[in-house]
Amino acid sequence: MLQMVCTGCDHTEPVDVRVYDCPWCGAPFRFVDGMPNADTSFPNSIDPHEQGVWRYRRLLPVEEQTDPVTLGEGGTPVVRLDRWGAEHGLPELRAKLEHLGPTGSFKDRGTTLLLTALRAAGVERVIEDSSGNAGAAVAAYAARAGIATRVFVPASAPASKLAQIAAYGAEIVPVEGTREEVTEAALAALDADTVYASHNLSPYFPESLKTFAYELYEFSADDLPDHIVFPVGNGSLLLGAARGFADLAELSAPARSPRLHAAQAENCAPIVYAHNHRVMEDAPEWSATLAGGVAVAQPPRMAEILEALHDSGGTATTVSEAEIREAAMSLARMEGLYVEPTTAVAFAAAARLRREGAIGEGQKVLVPVTGSGLKDPLING
Amino acid sequence: MLQMVCTGCDHTEPVDVRVYDCPWCGAPFRFVDGMPNADTSFPNSIDPHEQGVWRYRRLLPVEEQTDPVTLGEGGTPVVRLDRWGAEHGLPELRAKLEHLGPTGSFKDRGTTLLLTALRAAGVERVIEDSSGNAGAAVAAYAARAGIATRVFVPASAPASKLAQIAAYGAEIVPVEGTREEVTEAALAALDADTVYASHNLSPYFPESLKTFAYELYEFSADDLPDHIVFPVGNGSLLLGAARGFADLAELSAPARSPRLHAAQAENCAPIVYAHNHRVMEDAPEWSATLAGGVAVAQPPRMAEILEALHDSGGTATTVSEAEIREAAMSLARMEGLYVEPTTAVAFAAAARLRREGAIGEGQKVLVPVTGSGLKDPLING
Repeated sequence: MLQMVCTGCDHTEPVDVRVYDCPWCGAPFRFVDGMPNADTSFPNSIDPHEQGVWRYRRLLPVEEQTDPVTLGEGGTPVVRLDRWGAEHGLPELRAKLEHLGPTGSFKDRGTTLLLTALRAAGVERVIEDSSGNAGAAVAAYAARAGIATRVFVPASAPASKLAQIAAYGAEIVPVEGTREEVTEAALAALDADTVYASHNLSPYFPESLKTFAYELYEFSADDLPDHIVFPVGNGSLLLGAARGFADLAELSAPARSPRLHAAQAENCAPIVYAHNHRVMEDAPEWSATLAGGVAVAQPPRMAEILEALHDSGGTATTVSEAEIREAAMSLARMEGLYVEPTTAVAFAAAARLRREGAIGEGQKVLVPVTGSGLKDPLING
Repeated sequence: MLQMVCTGCDHTEPVDVRVYDCPWCGAPFRFVDGMPNADTSFPNSIDPHEQGVWRYRRLLPVEEQTDPVTLGEGGTPVVRLDRWGAEHGLPELRAKLEHLGPTGSFKDRGTTLLLTALRAAGVERVIEDSSGNAGAAVAAYAARAGIATRVFVPASAPASKLAQIAAYGAEIVPVEGTREEVTEAALAALDADTVYASHNLSPYFPESLKTFAYELYEFSADDLPDHIVFPVGNGSLLLGAARGFADLAELSAPARSPRLHAAQAENCAPIVYAHNHRVMEDAPEWSATLAGGVAVAQPPRMAEILEALHDSGGTATTVSEAEIREAAMSLARMEGLYVEPTTAVAFAAAARLRREGAIGEGQKVLVPVTGSGLKDPLING
């Protein structure tokens, strides 16, 4: 039976879209068995008449008859990056273009399941806190589902980032103070009729990102990457991929999962610090970074992320602001790939992992393009 | 044998990427037989191991061994728009999301073939004139192909639109004067080493857009739309679709092509004027429109467009600036679909065609989303 288990204390709860954290320890939940309708094998669980995320609906935690809230997300292309790769010692470098989602980021792949579950549960009002890609994704899918949305954002958020969220008809609530105070304001506004549609805390969001791994396996099982390097803020795509590869092993067994690596900015690298020091004590004060998507000082799913790195044999590494800027610029100029700075973190980290030997000569490396440069341009880039 | 034929005077020329207009009459060329490597049937001509445009490479005018310049374009999803459709008397309305291309517009689908042909011909420098989606697409694919690009733009073009083009490393050349003077400046800069990579004039660009029709047929042959409504500026997507359906009839015959309709803004509607009046004499002075992609006073392929409308049983219609704005806003708010104003022209026109009876009750209607709202936001939208 589909259940939620706390990632902190292993307390289990029946599935409820209204419950976003553990009543005992406050940690977020994950699903115990996220494939309630799976067939005995992966190929038999695929719906060949569907494209994208919903091609794998039998491997997702929803009733088989549930009508999805979809905008055609998933099914993203993989392209070779021969020129940029050659320059950085990575002749077998590929990118999976997650930014070609309906709202311009990988968040769409997670949001389709979250809003599907919310609509199926009869939810009519949601709250989210984000000034970036997640806010836009939740606002768009909620609009399509006919669900009213309030998005709490830092008062300092740039108007350009809010224009897209506003276009979907979401109510924007600016909050003075830190990012944590924005979340507190959102939580304080919850009432009996309103659900917290948190991409950070809901177990649906990372569960839907499993399909990232499914697609890699379905369309290139013979050519799986040796390494995948993710830009990590809250870590949902890395976690989703890890679960997807775990599911595949259960269903039909690819020989091994790729090594999953976490890339962060030197200016904000709590995962790298915890990975290297085994504890969070004495972590430095983090500062601002160009890469807004990795500027997360306290990722709620830290323990799961560290476990996924360890289990896959991956590592965690940082890059400088100069490396981020240089990678973003050179990817556009050499490959026609216009990425947001957050994505550039992972490309710069791949180059660094190769220099430092964690990626071997000639190994196959994949980097997800998590967001479009259109949404977060490097001014004077 | 693959040949180019003039759309004005039927003069034929051998294929040459450097020749962009007829030496006799100045009209653009099209290909005589754009499927030189096709098998006897459509299904047999598909490469099942490829996604997107290059899945149909045997139906495109390139040598079978040519290495494509690709960024994963094509293979776009089709989504239902039940809420917006119901509100506008179109219960069977769907959108094909062409804006989910690598640079954020349908132009990518045409540019991949154009740059593939240019690179295969050994071209090292190109010129283009555009301040919008085509400039970005050519700059991106040329960057990936290692081809140097100069993009001529109106001096009045907004900085935000130029940031993406500049990111790809293209040289931007601002020109004072009218749009026609920008083109003249680009042509004047041509020399023996530089090719005019014009999305308006090159026959490769619309030829690649045939794949729009191929995808509709391959993935929903049993459920083809009765009508497709295109926003038309230079008309390349409408022309590409028309050729694609013609190819399909030749290869394996769908029962009929959908009716293809052209949508333009009241403020700039030369196609509608010519369609209704049969001549261009006494056409009004056109004025500015929110919908930059349809602001083309003299489309070079006008004759072909009128023929495609006629042959498919389609029509041509205009919408007001207010209707464009209203459609763009309501699509985002009701469907989570954030489109550029140019795309909104076609949705507003579909609603109008239904009101006026050209689209019958309950008929299936498809509209391509040609560009993302991220690239051309409605300020205060």
